[in-house]
This record gives sequence, C-alpha cells and structure tokens, in this order.
Amino acid sequence: MEVHYHDYLQLDKILNAQFPESERHQLPAHDEMLFIVIHQAYELWFKQLHYEVDSMAVIMGKPALNDNSPELQTVVHRLNRCITILRVLVHQIDIMETMTPMDFLDFRDMLRPASGFQSWQFKELEAKLGLKFEHRHGKEYYTAQLRPRQVEIIKKAESSKSLLQLLNGWLERMPFFEESDQWKNFVTHDPTPTLHSFWSEYRYQYTGSLAEAEKNNKEVFDEVFMNPASPERTISSKASRAALFIMLYRGYPMLQLPFQLLNALLEIDEQLSSWRYRHMNMVHRMIGARIGTGGSTGKDYLKAAADKHYIFKEIAQLNSFLIERRKLPSLPAGIEKRLGFVTS
Amino acid sequence: MEVHYHDYLQLDKILNAQFPESERHQLPAHDEMLFIVIHQAYELWFKQLHYEVDSMAVIMGKPALNDNSPELQTVVHRLNRCITILRVLVHQIDIMETMTPMDFLDFRDMLRPASGFQSWQFKELEAKLGLKFEHRHGKEYYTAQLRPRQVEIIKKAESSKSLLQLLNGWLERMPFFEESDQWKNFVTHDPTPTLHSFWSEYRYQYTGSLAEAEKNNKEVFDEVFMNPASPERTISSKASRAALFIMLYRGYPMLQLPFQLLNALLEIDEQLSSWRYRHMNMVHRMIGARIGTGGSTGKDYLKAAADKHYIFKEIAQLNSFLIERRKLPSLPAGIEKRLGFVTS
Amino acid sequence: MEVHYHDYLQLDKILNAQFPESERHQLPAHDEMLFIVIHQAYELWFKQLHYEVDSMAVIMGKPALNDNSPELQTVVHRLNRCITILRVLVHQIDIMETMTPMDFLDFRDMLRPASGFQSWQFKELEAKLGLKFEHRHGKEYYTAQLRPRQVEIIKKAESSKSLLQLLNGWLERMPFFEESDQWKNFVTHDPTPTLHSFWSEYRYQYTGSLAEAEKNNKEVFDEVFMNPASPERTISSKASRAALFIMLYRGYPMLQLPFQLLNALLEIDEQLSSWRYRHMNMVHRMIGARIGTGGSTGKDYLKAAADKHYIFKEIAQLNSFLIERRKLPSLPAGIEKRLGFVTS
Amino acid sequence: MEVHYHDYLQLDKILNAQFPESERHQLPAHDEMLFIVIHQAYELWFKQLHYEVDSMAVIMGKPALNDNSPELQTVVHRLNRCITILRVLVHQIDIMETMTPMDFLDFRDMLRPASGFQSWQFKELEAKLGLKFEHRHGKEYYTAQLRPRQVEIIKKAESSKSLLQLLNGWLERMPFFEESDQWKNFVTHDPTPTLHSFWSEYRYQYTGSLAEAEKNNKEVFDEVFMNPASPERTISSKASRAALFIMLYRGYPMLQLPFQLLNALLEIDEQLSSWRYRHMNMVHRMIGARIGTGGSTGKDYLKAAADKHYIFKEIAQLNSFLIERRKLPSLPAGIEKRLGFVTS
Repeated sequence: MEVHYHDYLQLDKILNAQFPESERHQLPAHDEMLFIVIHQAYELWFKQLHYEVDSMAVIMGKPALNDNSPELQTVVHRLNRCITILRVLVHQIDIMETMTPMDFLDFRDMLRPASGFQSWQFKELEAKLGLKFEHRHGKEYYTAQLRPRQVEIIKKAESSKSLLQLLNGWLERMPFFEESDQWKNFVTHDPTPTLHSFWSEYRYQYTGSLAEAEKNNKEVFDEVFMNPASPERTISSKASRAALFIMLYRGYPMLQLPFQLLNALLEIDEQLSSWRYRHMNMVHRMIGARIGTGGSTGKDYLKAAADKHYIFKEIAQLNSFLIERRKLPSLPAGIEKRLGFVTS
Repeated sequence: MEVHYHDYLQLDKILNAQFPESERHQLPAHDEMLFIVIHQAYELWFKQLHYEVDSMAVIMGKPALNDNSPELQTVVHRLNRCITILRVLVHQIDIMETMTPMDFLDFRDMLRPASGFQSWQFKELEAKLGLKFEHRHGKEYYTAQLRPRQVEIIKKAESSKSLLQLLNGWLERMPFFEESDQWKNFVTHDPTPTLHSFWSEYRYQYTGSLAEAEKNNKEVFDEVFMNPASPERTISSKASRAALFIMLYRGYPMLQLPFQLLNALLEIDEQLSSWRYRHMNMVHRMIGARIGTGGSTGKDYLKAAADKHYIFKEIAQLNSFLIERRKLPSLPAGIEKRLGFVTS
Repeated sequence: MEVHYHDYLQLDKILNAQFPESERHQLPAHDEMLFIVIHQAYELWFKQLHYEVDSMAVIMGKPALNDNSPELQTVVHRLNRCITILRVLVHQIDIMETMTPMDFLDFRDMLRPASGFQSWQFKELEAKLGLKFEHRHGKEYYTAQLRPRQVEIIKKAESSKSLLQLLNGWLERMPFFEESDQWKNFVTHDPTPTLHSFWSEYRYQYTGSLAEAEKNNKEVFDEVFMNPASPERTISSKASRAALFIMLYRGYPMLQLPFQLLNALLEIDEQLSSWRYRHMNMVHRMIGARIGTGGSTGKDYLKAAADKHYIFKEIAQLNSFLIERRKLPSLPAGIEKRLGFVTS
Repeated sequence: MEVHYHDYLQLDKILNAQFPESERHQLPAHDEMLFIVIHQAYELWFKQLHYEVDSMAVIMGKPALNDNSPELQTVVHRLNRCITILRVLVHQIDIMETMTPMDFLDFRDMLRPASGFQSWQFKELEAKLGLKFEHRHGKEYYTAQLRPRQVEIIKKAESSKSLLQLLNGWLERMPFFEESDQWKNFVTHDPTPTLHSFWSEYRYQYTGSLAEAEKNNKEVFDEVFMNPASPERTISSKASRAALFIMLYRGYPMLQLPFQLLNALLEIDEQLSSWRYRHMNMVHRMIGARIGTGGSTGKDYLKAAADKHYIFKEIAQLNSFLIERRKLPSLPAGIEKRLGFVTS
C-alpha cells in the first residue's frame, strides 16, 4: 500500500484541531489562532521529548550497560537531540511575543480557567527527569488545576525511577575503585587517610588548593563525597565520586562518552531554565502584575520555578571541586589500561 | 462552561496522530517518531502562516486603505510575525539534522512514495504570496504527486490575487504624483523630460551617478520605470515608481509604514530562501546523491527552487536604483505637507 | 587616496591585541585565547551600543521632536538595531560554554584579580539607559574594582540625563490632553471625576474590569497615574498617562511609532536580562560555588542583577492597566483628527 | 603583578581602532561605525578560528594518533567550538541587515576600492581547511585585490597540508583491514570478489540495494572506493573506505569519536556555506544589481562560492553509499574485539 504524506502525517486531524473560543463567542479575536497553534506545537514537541527520555530510561535502567555496545552513545546522542529541541522551544517564545498585550486581552477572559499550568505533559517530563514533588514550587497548581487522570500520570512518573536516579545507579556501578589490587601502590600525601587512597589524596590536593575565603568548601566536600547518607541528595557520595572522576579524567577513552553524558544533562537543565525564564519575562510583558487565566500570578510562579527546578544541580555543583589538570594525581598503570582500548 | 487546556488544544487529536510505518511493518525505527513530529510541527506553522497571509490579503485587497485606520499597521505587524515564525522554522532544521543518514535509512524505504514535496500547504503558500506556476521549478512534482483535490487548492490560490498583485494595486493607487498642481514649479535638469518632472529629474540624477561599468543600468531603469507594459514584470512601472519613492523618502511620516511593509516582504523572501537552502543542505547530507522517497533527486529540486522562487525580487531589484540621500531632489512644499501629520 | 580593507579596519591593532597570561607564565593554556577574543568581541559591541544610545539621546533630548521629521523613526530604527545586537550577544554565550571548567582552571588563577565585573563600558551603558546607582546590586564592585578614571566615566553617565529620563520628558510633552476645547463634550461615567474627563472615564472602566482578586490594582492605578510626586518613580504620573494612551490607541497613525518605541525599550530590557541570566548560568556551570577571579561569588551577583536591573520596568508595569479594545472610550473627533494624516 | 581587565584585553587598542572615512571626508554617515565594528568582530573571530584549526592540524599531522590519548577528543571538541563560532557568525549577519541600502549609500563610495573580498584571513582559512586554488571561484579577486604579503600568506596555506589532506592521511592509517588473519573466515556473496573480502561483500550488498533509477551509482561506487588514483579526489579510495567503515560501524567504541569527527567536518562546511549564502542575500538586498566597492558584482561571486567552495564534499558524498543497518555484514570476532574496550 502506498503511503501518502497527507495521510501519513494525519493532517486531517492536525489541521482541524483549532477551535478559537472567540469564534464560539462570536467576538473574533485574530490572535487566538496563534495562541492555539503555538501551544499545540509545544505539546507536539513535549511528546517527542517524552519519547526520547523514555527510550533513554530503558537503556539507563539496565542492570549493566555493555561498554562495548552502542548503548551509551545512543543515550548521549538522544540527549543532544533533546537539547536541540529545547533550543528551538526557547526560540519559539519569540513568536508568542509578537502578540501584544492588547491583542491578548481580546480573548483572554474567554479562556478561563484554562492555563498553561495545565500542561501535564510538561510536568510529567520534569518528574521523569527527576524533579520531586516536594521540590516543586506551587504544588497546588497541579493538584487543583489538573484532572484526576492527569495528576495520576504525573504521580506515576514521580514514583518511577527518574533519569536522575538511574544516573545515580549507573554512576554507582563504576568499577575502577573496587579493584583494590590496582591501587595498592598508590601513595597519598594525606597524613590521615580515611577513604580509598585515591580519594584521600584528591581531598588533600583539593583542600590545599582552596583560597582563604573558600575554606568552608572543605566541609561541603566531605558532605558531598564522604557522607554516605546525606539526606538532601539524590546522587550518593559514591556516585558523586564517580562523576567527579569522569570530569577529571575525561581524556581517557572510556570516560569520553560518560563526560559527554554529564555535560549534556547540565545543558538540559540550562535550556529548561532558559525556557522558564524567557517564559516568565514574556508573561510579565503580557499581563504585567495581573492574575493569569488559571488564577495564579503567573510571573511569580515561573520565577520561582526558574530558580528552584534545577534537576541536575547536584552534578553542576561538582564543578566546585575540580583542581588544575597539572596537579591531578597520576593513575596507576593498571587503571590506565582499563580506561583504554585494546591495543593489539 | 469552563474551558480546560487539554480540550481547548484538542490534545486528544494532536497527541494521538503519530503512526510510524516502521511499527506497522514490525521493524521499529526509533527516529521515525521524530520524522513525523517535525513534519507535523511544520504543517501546524504553515497553517498559521496561511491564516496570517489570508488576513493581510483581505486588507490589501480593499479598494482603498484608509491612511488613518490601523490597517496598514496591522499588515506590517502580521508580516513581522510571519518573519518570526519563518526564523523558527529555519532553526527547526537543526532538529532534523540530529537524525543521521543511517538512522533515516532504517525506515526510509517504508515511506515511499510519500515525500516532503507533497506538502500542499507550502505550495499553496508560495502561490498565495505570488509564485506563478510558470516560474516554479519542477512543475511536474505537484501535478504528478499531489492528489487532485490538493492540486485544485493550489490552482485556486494561483488564480486568485496574490499578495504580490495586491501590493502592485496598492502601490499604483499612490496619489502624490497625480496632483499636478503641487508639482508645477518643480524643476528638472533633464534637458528632454519625458515623464512626470520628478521622475525626469530622478532619472537624470541616477544616470549621472552611475560608474562607467554600470552604464547599462540606465536601460534597466527605463525598462523598470518607464515601460508601462513590461511583459516580464508583475509590478508595473507605475507601482515601481511608487515603491522607489517610498524607499527614497521613507523619512516622511506617511511613508514610514509603507517602507516597513516593503522591507518586511524582502525579509519574507530571504527567510523562505534560507529555509529552502538549509533544507537542501540537510537533504544532501542525509541521502547524498541518492534519490528522494518521492522519486526526485531532492537536492537538485531544492537548489533550483532556492535560486528561482524569489517572490518579491522585483522589489529587491529597486535597490539598484537608489541615489545618495544628499543628492535627493527636494519635494515641493505641498507634497511635503501631504506626507505629514496635521500640525494644529 | 585608496582605502584598503586591512588598514581601514585597523587590523594590525585588532589582530595583535591578544596576549595570554598563560604564555607569559610559560604554562600555555589553549583556551585562554578564546577567553580573550570573546571578551574583546563583547567590548567591541558594547562600543557600538554606546554609539547608538548616544545618538538617540541627542534626538530624545531636543526640546521638541518634530513629528514630521524622521527623528522618531530614527530612534526606533536604532533601538531595533540594539536589540538585534543584544540577541547576538546572548547567542555568543554559547561560544563561551564550549570552554569546560577544567579548561578554564588551566589559566583562571593567572588572571586574578581581573574580572568581568571590570567592564566599565557595560556599567556605563546601564547608567546611560537609566540604571541608578542606588538600584545597583553590588555597588561595591565598581567602586572597589574599577580604576578612578573608569568610575568617573560611569558617574558622569549617572549624572547626565538617562534615556529613561529623556523618555519621561518626551512623554510629558504629549499635547493632546491640554487642548481642553477638544474634550469639552467628552462624557465620563465616573460619578465623581477628579481628573481630566478622559482619565476619570478610563479609571472608571478599568476598575470596573478588575476581578475580585485584583481589587488592589485600583490603588496601584492611583499611585501610578494620579500621584504627581511618587517618590519611587522616574516616569511621572503625567508621562505614565501618555504612555498608557499610546498603548491603548496605537492604531492611530501618530501613535504608531511611539508604540514601537515603547515596545522596543521593553525588548531591550528583556534582552539585557536574558544576557545576565544566561551569563549567570554559564558562570555557575564554570566555577560552581567557588569564588570568581574578581573576588565575588559571581553567580550571586549576576542573579541579583538579573532580578533587579530592569531599567524600563515602570513602562512594563503599565500593561497591568489595559482594558479590552472593545471597551475603550471613543475619542472626540477633533482628537482623532489630530492623531492622523492630512487627508486632502 | 596584578592583572587588570582593561589592560589584559588591550582595550586601549581595541576601542580606539574605528576611524570612519565619512568623518575624514566631513560627511558623517552614522552607519559607518556599525560597518567597521561588525567587520572587526568578524576578523577577531576569524583569528580565533585560525587558532583552533592550527591546533588541530598539529594533532592530525602526527605520524600516529595514540588511540588512548585525548588527542582525537581534543580535535572533535575544537571542531565543535568552531561550529558554534560559525553559527554566531551566521547570526551576526542579522546585525548588518539593520543597515538599509540608503544608509549604506551615505558612505559606500568613500570606501572604494576596499571590499570584503580583501579579508585575507577568511581566504587563508578556506585554504587551511582544504580549498584549492584551482577550485576557487574568482581566483582573480585575491591576486588582484590583496597585497603581495597577503597573497603570500594564502599561498603558504595552500602549499601546506590542509586539514582535508591530514584527514586523508589519518583515514589511510586505519589498521583493521590489514590484519588479514582476522578476516580469513569472512565470507562474501560476491561471485567474483576483486577486493578485500569485506569490501567485495559490501559492494555486493550495496549494488543489490539500488533501485532501478539509481543503477549508475554502481559506477560511482567503483570510482570512489576502488580506483586508487582518481585524479579528481583528495580523499583516496583507501581513505574513503575507512570513512565509510566509520559511518557504518560507528556503534563500536573505537569508532565513536571518528564518527563525531566526520560529522563535525560536514557541519563546518554547512555553516560556512550558510554564511556565504546569507551574505550573498544580504549583499543582494543592499546593492541590488550594482557593482560592489571592490569592483566585483558581489552577489554573483558569493553565489558561485556558496555553490563551489564545499571543502569536505567528498566525505558528504559517502552518505550515498550506506546500506540499511539490518543488512550490514557482521564483523569477525577478532575485529569486534579490536574495536572495543579492554574488558577485564
């Protein structure tokens, strides 16, 4: 059977799904069409983001990634795709900004109480990535505004393993430090080593590198990398050490893709955050200090969310604990070998 | 009745309109979802572009625009919106480029003979703006590939007044040169004036400004501005003079929006052309020299279209006929008054 | 004398102005060149922004703009250019982000105490636009870090008329409400009119449009539009009324460019704010919670500045006081005439 | 010695390098400052691109890249930085487009015969990447317009190993096919194998996959992959086979970065080409069909260059020779092992 573009893309559905309220009220407002189309475009892309994130979660959730399979490469490639999509979504706000406040007023009141806060796909996406209910600003928005079935969808995502948790598991499985044979000759300058010798040494070098005004970073170091049960953190101390190791020694072949992975996650956060920030500015220009159609003071919600909804911030924080490349401890030969390719 | 985001946006339709062929063939290809979603997003935005262009055509088609109404302002505002949309559509190609040629191959053959050439909305849009059938590259693509009803839609657009033709009509209605009283004291240096005295003078100044190597521009000037029945042109010589006048004297209040209008039309062309060009490069990277799913050598079509489908090129060409501001003829006082505001 | 590209652009200077500290210390760090070049590119563009803003200030500072001259058009055109430049400057942060934290560490300590906070051109620009010293976050940064001559430059900008103040003066000169003849038949529904009849009527309509939860907007309205000496505001109540009038009746020819002007100023703020926000995120990724080379916790400064340094926020706020177009009071015929073109 | 921002960035040089010709002629033209600043910004970034490309050439020119060193990763990272820079340079054309043709005319003639064609840095960059003199459009532009010393610089780049040639050398050194032991059991379906058994098999599969209309691709395949001395090509048949192998089997760890490398080179070409294309459109809008300040018909030159100056087109072409992933020949176990990590 021949495939035709029009049917394949289901254009009869897609192009017949715009029903302005202002037409129903017989008070046509030209710009309502734009309002509908742009939100539909956003939701289409949210669907695609879910599709990508779900596929990554399947891979990351495997008991062990095969280092010689393309799995990690696939995750990195798809994260980069998500970043590219998010960049376009940020750019797309420019289109919304071609609607002036007066033009929005022409139909704004007809939409009540519908509101962008009712995008359950976006909330579900945040949950899948790792935003916990208790860290959400404005928890009431979704319990009060969404339909029971939609709340259920988000709750389900919140109770499943998030990408952040899967990342934690994957980091914790990093093997190199458990091979104690390899490290037996590794020497630390730390007079009172309390950890694996490499980490004692690293901690010694790091604290030595701190300027006077930064001395309290030492305690944060211990909390992040040595406290096995820090209640505030999703990324465990063990996983944090693995992530820091990747950042420090990314030059070794086996750490190249893991480094790209960590970097891509930070970029996801940055794009999401840019989106919320520009969205907030746009709402501010559109309705000033008035109240959003969903009953919220839109700007304040978005501002708080832009500040608080960083999902991978525990990874971003690790950049506080780097030391200069020329001061990095050399790795034992056996570990170096393990981080490289077979060389015939 | 309360409006809910999910229903208002018809998300049941929008989010349930993705049916990958690779699933139907039980040979799942991950990237086909992206392929579907991005084309749907494009078609949504094409619908919005039609909506805007139709609304402009209604205004531009009026027998006379009221200079004191917001009509022209509305046209300019909506054209600028179309430009903003087109910029996002160009950017969106970045997303498609995250699909590698190998990933596309996974489902490419299952789509035959569907093809991006079957986007009748895009072809209809080109026609509404002013692309004539006889200037189209690859005319056979739409006669052979589209369904009769789709061909009919495009043919209808081709036989209606295009935005380019409406622009011509609007330019021809510019009144200032017909008020002969106002010009009676205007002096031209042209020893053998053949036109309205202003244009004789302008032609004299322009030809005097040409460098030796540019001398043949003089004949083009006469063809564009003096030949009332140039067979090649949609914009008549009278309308061309009006457009040039707008470009030259855009500083007068009454010509400010007209200038913004002309500029916006050139920007539309430039964005459409960027879109075709990046699209061509993308196809080239994706399939190399192979043949597209619709049976065409995709790259060659897109390249030819990028070169030939400039819709407002007759307006762009007018920039060849400007002279330096300090050499511009001064306008008679009565005309200056007519181009300004009432000043009590 | 013939002009040559190389001399004209002074490329001997421009291309021989990069002296990495890491080379001087004989510890070459590849990425320092990028760090230098990107900051130089920023400073070049800051120079251009100054050039444009200065030229606008000259025009806006004239005792009276001639409505029939191209002056206002010129201001709007140059503001739009500044917006385009700022968009590129925001985008340019992508380039900085290609430098990883480890790569920055390679030369970071060699730069102390130099810091991006020492861009006096940027601070001077904020001052010229209208940021007052007392509204600045981190005032100490420039008093402590800049050289006396640089502080002097900024102080001079702070003590001159800012673009915001010039805007206020221009708005206050709007004539329409002072022509009492024209308004004598204008009827207000307000039982106890206290202002010009138009504004009494508008206030009556606006307060009638407020939802229950928005009632306190009424007091803000009075503070903004009726209190002639609000100590917090740079834009006077008279100027605020003029600006609101422009937003409401932008459809009239004479208000079209003024509306574009107000809109462009809000866009300037939005782009500056995006720049600070992305800059903040970039610094956060680069140095985590560590202390910047200039001794500040860079991220916190930038965050506070992104929140507080809105320059045209008093204009943005006016969008809270719009009413629906269909409820707008009709203007008297004489005023309508004054807002339009001469029509012979 | 303390470093200060202002001195470190040599701002005294950078910010005092703008000397408009229109001021010298005492016919000030506001927009000339923009014209100078934007070209200086371009040249700064060209310097940075040279710096990155030179550093890559050093790495790629080594007799053998150590697969276990970060060298290849460094090349890919810097290529990606170049791409990011080029994207900003494309975007920057938006700024130039805020100059209207009339505004350009105000100073255009004062610049003669200076011209953008005299950017020797850009020509040198094209040469370093791999554009040969004989493939250049408008060879006369640089022999006639550049100074002897500048021509010399470009000639030197042309006679050194270009990145394209270094890529060829690196690809030719790929070892896997020379280890004949590993392939001895590999079976081809090709009844008359003429090549290494893997390539006989691949050629058999590829030609079997061609549609009727694509049959002539078979000859191109033989020309590209089997003719050891194709006079038209810089990438030899041996190197072409290596590149195709990377594209096909990119899933193996050892081919992941090589694949990113090839992809990044194509992206470089695409961005350069977008830059030329948008530049061409901009020139067309600016001067129409008139002659550029350097005496050339600017648009035609740029158009031809956009079409012809693809540097890595021989790599892009390889995408014509892919086959579906599910039809790919399985690799021998020994080769698979060689493409992966040591797994203890």
